[in-house]
This record gives sequence, C-alpha cells and structure tokens, in this order.
Amino acid sequence: MKASVILSHPYSESFNHAIFRTVCRTLDELNVEVFKHDLYLENFNPVLSVNELGTDSSNDPLVNQYTAEMMESDLLVFIHPNWWGQPPAILKGYIDRIFRPPHAYDFSEKEGAGGVPEPKLCGKYGIVFNTSNTAEERETDFFGDPLESIWKQCIFAFCGIGGYYRKMFRIVSDSDQALREKWLLEAEQAVEGIVRDFSKTGG
Amino acid sequence: MKASVILSHPYSESFNHAIFRTVCRTLDELNVEVFKHDLYLENFNPVLSVNELGTDSSNDPLVNQYTAEMMESDLLVFIHPNWWGQPPAILKGYIDRIFRPPHAYDFSEKEGAGGVPEPKLCGKYGIVFNTSNTAEERETDFFGDPLESIWKQCIFAFCGIGGYYRKMFRIVSDSDQALREKWLLEAEQAVEGIVRDFSKTGG
Repeated sequence: MKASVILSHPYSESFNHAIFRTVCRTLDELNVEVFKHDLYLENFNPVLSVNELGTDSSNDPLVNQYTAEMMESDLLVFIHPNWWGQPPAILKGYIDRIFRPPHAYDFSEKEGAGGVPEPKLCGKYGIVFNTSNTAEERETDFFGDPLESIWKQCIFAFCGIGGYYRKMFRIVSDSDQALREKWLLEAEQAVEGIVRDFSKTGG
Repeated sequence: MKASVILSHPYSESFNHAIFRTVCRTLDELNVEVFKHDLYLENFNPVLSVNELGTDSSNDPLVNQYTAEMMESDLLVFIHPNWWGQPPAILKGYIDRIFRPPHAYDFSEKEGAGGVPEPKLCGKYGIVFNTSNTAEERETDFFGDPLESIWKQCIFAFCGIGGYYRKMFRIVSDSDQALREKWLLEAEQAVEGIVRDFSKTGG
C-alpha cells in the first residue's frame, strides 16, 4: 500500500505539523510506503500558469513528481488549517496543478469540455485533517462548512474517490497539551482503522 | 466612490478578462475611482509566509498596496473561474494575505483568537463574477456550490459586508459570441444598478 501525505501550514511548530508527524509515523509503522510533503518547506509554487492550462505536461519537477506519486498512492492525505472555508493558497495550488487531466480526470471526446469528465482516481481513499478556531455551531450554521463539500464532492467524488474521512480539530487556539495529545491519538487511530479496512477490501 | 477590481485568470484571452474590461469600463463611465488588478499580470505571490502570520505588516509592496486600496474601496469586485469550487490559488492567496487583521477584521482582547472576531469592512459592497463549465443542476445538487458560502459568509459576512451580488456565467466552454455579449451586458447592468443604489443609500 502507498500513501501521499501533504502538509500545508507556514509555522513549523503548528499543530498541523504535529498531525503530519503522527500520520507519517503511523503509516510507517503499518508498512505503508509514504510520500511525505511539507509544501511550505519544499517551496511549492501554487500558481497554475497559462502554459499548464489544458495540458498534461509541466516544466516544474515538483508538479511531475507529486502527480506521479498521487497516481501511485492508494491513500491521499491532506493536512491543513481552515482559512476562509478553504485550504491555504499553497495547497489550493496543489489541487489546481496536480489534480489535472488526463491524470486525475479526463474529458470525454464525445462530450467535450462542457460535459461531465471521466473520473480517474477510482479506488483510492481520501483523508483530510483540518484545524479550526471556529466553534462547531458557528461553522455549520453561519459559514456552512464549505470544506466538506470542497473535499468530499468537488475534489474526491469528482475524481471518482468514494472512500473518504475528514476530521476537523477545534478550537486549536484554546487547546492545552492534554487535549492535543488526545487529538493526535484520534488521528492515529483513524489512520490505523482506514488502513486496516482498506487492506481487507482492496480499496 | 471607489472600487477594487481583482481579476484572476491565467489566459489573457479568457472570458474572465472580457468581464474585467467590461466592469472597469462601466465603473470608469460612472466616475468611480477604480483600482484595477490582474493578479497574474502583476505576478502576485499568493503564499502567506510565517512572518506574516498573525501580524499586520508585510515586506511585500503589493500586499500593502492592495490592502490600503481595499480599505479605501466602497466596492470590492472579484472575477475568477470556478476551479474545484474555489478561486484559483493566486486569488486564494489574495484573500489569505490581504484580508488580515487588524484591517479586514480584528480579534477582541476579551475573547482572544478563539472568539468571534470584530468585522472591519462594514458598509462596503461585495461583487463576484464567476465562470463555470458545470451545469447549474450538477453544481447545486452534486457539488453544493461552495463558492456561494465562501464569498457570502466566510469572507464578506465575516468581515461585516452584508451587501453582496454574485453571478456565475455558464457554460462558458459551449458559449458563442452572441451569448458572451449578452453576459457582458448583464455584468454591465448589474454593476450600474449596484453603483446607483449604493450612491443613493451611502452603502
């Protein structure tokens, strides 16, 4: 089994970094081959250029590497804070540049660009860990939690990924060490359970 | 009256560019002072750095310029394609870096970072023009149109902006010249109506 684990947070002491380390360690211990990427550390350029628009080729070695690894991976794991109901720009750019045709999806010749594209990531499993400083009730009632539809429908389901787990840890700014350790254990157990189920069913 | 008009599309012949030109011309003709920015053309860097996290200062002259202009503007206009239910990364980074405390919102000393921030853009009006290649029914039923909650609630309402207009033009990839001209007229009339009402009520 293989996994891509993608981290997006500017501060190296962030709780997002702690989740990243926990998820990577858990996957290592389960003998999953892990492609680990801290987008800030790797200085990823999130801007999709006009030359990349509508093509499958890129001159950016990181884009080609991340794409090849995504296609090989059974599990796609994303770790990021909730910024404006969306991922930080550096991770938004990963989506823009890596989830591209004909790799993640493709246009049917019959229907053209206006039709419903063919999903190309069927059988993979999507995992998202988020952090937030917004109370659950305000997130649901006032903001509508757009991250749920973004990840579950707009990205994963669009590309054929049905198996999906997402956990929002909140409120990070008010949390103490004991609560953070409980959250990290929760992340570890979630990943263990998903890997175990995935191994049994073959995706 | 003043307006910031922010364009985010990599292709200079795109329909987004045509909307941008139409909106800027309409505002010019109405004697609105317009700050016009094509984020791709200006090579804006969308990555919020660790040094900018939690501070109001930036070493990037574009960040300081865009922020000052946003604070001066009565109308905030954003023009972008629907990419994965979100703006392109370059515009997501504008949100991350420009809509920052203490300018767009601020933390109350009493409540701290986990509390509900104080909105600082009250009285301004938000306008969003989107382009899409997804049919309306599929956008609503399958994807849930996260751009609506992102702009209306997560960004504008969070910062105190209640007056809001958004229009999604679709299906752009199947549209002919006549339909595009009809859409541009619709954009022009929408902006005219908003400016007229805004002048009457003072925001």
